[in-house]
Amino acid sequence: MKKIAVIMGSDSDLPVVGKAIDTVKSFGVECEAHVFSAHRTPAEAKAFAESAEENGFGVIIAAAGMAAHLAGAIAASTTLPVIGIPVRGGMLDGLDALLSTVQMPPGIPVATVGVDGAVNAGLLAVEILAVSEPELKEKLKAKRAADKAKVLAKDAALEEKLAAMRG
Amino acid sequence: MKKIAVIMGSDSDLPVVGKAIDTVKSFGVECEAHVFSAHRTPAEAKAFAESAEENGFGVIIAAAGMAAHLAGAIAASTTLPVIGIPVRGGMLDGLDALLSTVQMPPGIPVATVGVDGAVNAGLLAVEILAVSEPELKEKLKAKRAADKAKVLAKDAALEEKLAAMRG
Amino acid sequence: MKKIAVIMGSDSDLPVVGKAIDTVKSFGVECEAHVFSAHRTPAEAKAFAESAEENGFGVIIAAAGMAAHLAGAIAASTTLPVIGIPVRGGMLDGLDALLSTVQMPPGIPVATVGVDGAVNAGLLAVEILAVSEPELKEKLKAKRAADKAKVLAKDAALEEKLAAMRG
Amino acid sequence: MKKIAVIMGSDSDLPVVGKAIDTVKSFGVECEAHVFSAHRTPAEAKAFAESAEENGFGVIIAAAGMAAHLAGAIAASTTLPVIGIPVRGGMLDGLDALLSTVQMPPGIPVATVGVDGAVNAGLLAVEILAVSEPELKEKLKAKRAADKAKVLAKDAALEEKLAAMRG
Amino acid sequence: MKKIAVIMGSDSDLPVVGKAIDTVKSFGVECEAHVFSAHRTPAEAKAFAESAEENGFGVIIAAAGMAAHLAGAIAASTTLPVIGIPVRGGMLDGLDALLSTVQMPPGIPVATVGVDGAVNAGLLAVEILAVSEPELKEKLKAKRAADKAKVLAKDAALEEKLAAMRG
Amino acid sequence: MKKIAVIMGSDSDLPVVGKAIDTVKSFGVECEAHVFSAHRTPAEAKAFAESAEENGFGVIIAAAGMAAHLAGAIAASTTLPVIGIPVRGGMLDGLDALLSTVQMPPGIPVATVGVDGAVNAGLLAVEILAVSEPELKEKLKAKRAADKAKVLAKDAALEEKLAAMRG
Amino acid sequence: MKKIAVIMGSDSDLPVVGKAIDTVKSFGVECEAHVFSAHRTPAEAKAFAESAEENGFGVIIAAAGMAAHLAGAIAASTTLPVIGIPVRGGMLDGLDALLSTVQMPPGIPVATVGVDGAVNAGLLAVEILAVSEPELKEKLKAKRAADKAKVLAKDAALEEKLAAMRG
Amino acid sequence: MKKIAVIMGSDSDLPVVGKAIDTVKSFGVECEAHVFSAHRTPAEAKAFAESAEENGFGVIIAAAGMAAHLAGAIAASTTLPVIGIPVRGGMLDGLDALLSTVQMPPGIPVATVGVDGAVNAGLLAVEILAVSEPELKEKLKAKRAADKAKVLAKDAALEEKLAAMRG
Repeated sequence: MKKIAVIMGSDSDLPVVGKAIDTVKSFGVECEAHVFSAHRTPAEAKAFAESAEENGFGVIIAAAGMAAHLAGAIAASTTLPVIGIPVRGGMLDGLDALLSTVQMPPGIPVATVGVDGAVNAGLLAVEILAVSEPELKEKLKAKRAADKAKVLAKDAALEEKLAAMRG
Repeated sequence: MKKIAVIMGSDSDLPVVGKAIDTVKSFGVECEAHVFSAHRTPAEAKAFAESAEENGFGVIIAAAGMAAHLAGAIAASTTLPVIGIPVRGGMLDGLDALLSTVQMPPGIPVATVGVDGAVNAGLLAVEILAVSEPELKEKLKAKRAADKAKVLAKDAALEEKLAAMRG
Repeated sequence: MKKIAVIMGSDSDLPVVGKAIDTVKSFGVECEAHVFSAHRTPAEAKAFAESAEENGFGVIIAAAGMAAHLAGAIAASTTLPVIGIPVRGGMLDGLDALLSTVQMPPGIPVATVGVDGAVNAGLLAVEILAVSEPELKEKLKAKRAADKAKVLAKDAALEEKLAAMRG
Repeated sequence: MKKIAVIMGSDSDLPVVGKAIDTVKSFGVECEAHVFSAHRTPAEAKAFAESAEENGFGVIIAAAGMAAHLAGAIAASTTLPVIGIPVRGGMLDGLDALLSTVQMPPGIPVATVGVDGAVNAGLLAVEILAVSEPELKEKLKAKRAADKAKVLAKDAALEEKLAAMRG
Repeated sequence: MKKIAVIMGSDSDLPVVGKAIDTVKSFGVECEAHVFSAHRTPAEAKAFAESAEENGFGVIIAAAGMAAHLAGAIAASTTLPVIGIPVRGGMLDGLDALLSTVQMPPGIPVATVGVDGAVNAGLLAVEILAVSEPELKEKLKAKRAADKAKVLAKDAALEEKLAAMRG
Repeated sequence: MKKIAVIMGSDSDLPVVGKAIDTVKSFGVECEAHVFSAHRTPAEAKAFAESAEENGFGVIIAAAGMAAHLAGAIAASTTLPVIGIPVRGGMLDGLDALLSTVQMPPGIPVATVGVDGAVNAGLLAVEILAVSEPELKEKLKAKRAADKAKVLAKDAALEEKLAAMRG
Repeated sequence: MKKIAVIMGSDSDLPVVGKAIDTVKSFGVECEAHVFSAHRTPAEAKAFAESAEENGFGVIIAAAGMAAHLAGAIAASTTLPVIGIPVRGGMLDGLDALLSTVQMPPGIPVATVGVDGAVNAGLLAVEILAVSEPELKEKLKAKRAADKAKVLAKDAALEEKLAAMRG
Repeated sequence: MKKIAVIMGSDSDLPVVGKAIDTVKSFGVECEAHVFSAHRTPAEAKAFAESAEENGFGVIIAAAGMAAHLAGAIAASTTLPVIGIPVRGGMLDGLDALLSTVQMPPGIPVATVGVDGAVNAGLLAVEILAVSEPELKEKLKAKRAADKAKVLAKDAALEEKLAAMRG
């Protein structure tokens, strides 16, 4: 099975991006994480992206904040699907990172998730591999069922929780 | 090879969304287009999403404007990768559609492209299929090379164009 | 008298949404609360909405944050008036939730209140029932009078408060 | 059956607000339209709102642009449900009007629809009356069915339309 | 000399609005403060505004947050200059209050200061009275000179402060 | 009676700013207009502002777009009330000009009107002079009455206009 | 004297970016223009930036729209001053391009001018060269004087223009 | 070698602006800091700017918040390159300061860095001097190499850090 790479612009993004790594690993998919900066180590980021396919990666997740060029720079150097996580921390709750990640010119797509949306980035990466990996498909469906069960349990417990809130 | 579905909230979105269909078809991938509304035909949208996998689809592209729920509603009913195209036309050049499409809760990812980013949605869908289809990979690389050649040609012709602008 | 339903996308919304429940109950109107997610339990949300009218509900209040589809999804499955509460917590103080809730396409209205506007959602629900329930009308007028009295009392106490601020 | 009032801040809003009037009338509900300004004719707006209930109105729709105070001013003078239509024309595609209409303080709700959302304002007003008017309920369901049929027809005609676009 | 009125929508605005009152009083101008709500006590707000001129007021300052209608409502009922202070607390650092205060329709101006700009509201009110009160003019010029001296003193002390910052 | 000055950053602003001049003149107040740029002719702008009081001006209106510093620069050089008109033309329908005009630091107020709000700038200037000019007061009240009459006339003609719209 | 490079992401930007080229040339400074894309020809952009210094360039101007990475990508590969022009055309009047250009991480500055601010980009480039080129300094001062004279001429002609506007 | 000036609108900006001073000094470039306000000490700001060139300055950095006119006011009085730092603290995470700094009219450029981007302002100033100072060039390249080494070290330590996060 192909691996998933998780690239972040700074290790200060780990508390957010760590959730993408955990999500990927929870599906039994191999995950490799790196700190590369589109601006401070552009050559390393490019080299990683250019060799990712032959190194066995199927999807690359890239997370960055502010003028977040990382996902776009990675996407410019590979035809693997690249998922961008805009990271909060610059301006406007991450609107700068969101627009810098999602508004790509025609030709170089970045699959963008919500601001700090690391769990969804991990899930999306797994969904992409699952297109040709039926076993991941089953795990994804099981995860959906578990998520649904949690919501239903919360619904069932709501009256109790409301009562508790009022002491 | 798996098919790609392109769903739009209204046929008035065709001038934008048509480019996603054309892009997908230009790679020789089969593409099926539908008009479904998350609000006016929710049952049909859900039924399509729930049966998409067994009907041979590998990726679903969904385009909508304003409070753009379509991609999220589709994603809630399938574990196939879902690509969302926020369509301009409501407020703030499509910021309403962008936020309604990208800011999904953990558990249900939508791979969002830029506002009116239909070409990139098509390319991303092909990139996703190409993870397990080497022949698409080659076509994607050829497309990148062609895009690059176009930019280089424009660079070569720039002095001429500048001269023309000044008559 | 018809009942009012309060649906929230997550029980983490309770500190906000609880005020809508309290407001409704303070008018002696029966109120039923649920946790349903437009994306994780779409079938349950739909089933509730479709049967709400015959189950004796007159108005449904739905609260959600981020790409807040819940109110719209509920509204798509009932012709009861649906009130949407955009919940802060995603981006831009809830602008994502506000636009996702209010910018509905023609045909499926959502009566949107301000961000975290749970008290007003409850009052609006009661105002809607009161159109045909004169007794609620009287209570609403009494509430207005009480609110007015509170403001006038604050005006009367202002000099004192100003003096206190300056020690 | 109760009547619906449609108030607009300026007769230049008629091309937008006219759709609310038409929508209401299409359900056979009596509709009375007025031009009142929260700032230039505040007394008339207030007098209308204060007497609306005894004059047989069940819902008031108020449309205004820019610092759109009209719906809030009406709502301050009645306990009837008040629906606000933010009208585009000031700044940011009507964001000024949207925030001025929806961000009401606790105590005085305004049921806000999308920017220029006049059709939905009309439908919401009818939905509110329909809580106690079963005959309107049926008409609303018929309208929904007709809307659905239109989308399905567009879906059926899509291939043809795509072909036509490509000549 | 005419008096200045300071109206606030809620006494929770006092920590901000108190600075307007203090600023006015520091010029020896008589200042009267009130809590009036455009929505909860519209009649009292209107009555105050309508009689303000004959009661000896020259300028009215009005402060409110969210869908901040107070300044506009006051301005609609008097031809005295009305100064609006948008108060932070709703959305987007007070952008909702700013747009609701400043985007007035032609005919009813509100002299808007910055978000939470209470000191400037007080100064502006004094500047307005000073147009016909030469003695206030002198005090304003003295205040400017004092402000300037403070900045120059900070400039003179900067090296020291920089050194202190570095320990 | 004191004069009113109208300063604009560029003569391309005349179609907007001309309405401020016309409004002022319609009250019989003397009005002097100038083109001064805070950035290209800062010395001239400053010289005008510094001598405005002794030259008989009571209020200065300043209009500019984009990073609109003009009103603030004028206000820094006089204690006369300065009214700022943010002019559309840069970004976001004039939000750049609005924030650049209204968000003044404590000490130097600018009385800001809405984007392109030239009529209101003129009216506000007259209201300021009217604090000590009873005759202007009467004219302002007459203007208000005329505005009100226009709205009432539009209300009276509404049914007719609605009928005309439908042919 | 060092040369100035003007790089644009697409030749569709020429109508805007051409003004930067013209501005630079009007000072007698040699200017070389290129079309390079941060995403479609990243290698060419990088190669140009890396060799720019030894090829005799003193400043690089880079213009791009949407998720505008071009200026940042250039800046990552040179220590020459890089000036970024955010180009309108994506969302929100170029706010996407502005934030993508200006919000650079510490270490890699981009000197950003206003949206479509090509004239200022050219002037800034010349100002930078002029730090060590006294002859450019004189030309810049002459340009300032000419700009000032134009504003003063417009001021002198204002009354005439106002009269003309009124026919 | 020419000196660099760092001007701030208030000494409360020191925690941000101090980083620009430190950055400049770390390159061995002489740096002079001042507190000048565009509005409270406009004459001093202007005098400094007008004499900066003959006093041996090569670049001026100016930092201000809210309606941040300081950089523009400085730029209006010198043809030295002026770098603007928009300072957070007003509205929208400094969007008010960013737009007030960057949206300059043609003729008077301000080289704007990101909100609170003091390090980059310092680096940009050094890059500008380095155009004619080869020794600074070498230091800039060494700084880049050090920055790159830090990122690579973080990449090398990532697995360890991830392990530590999970304890």
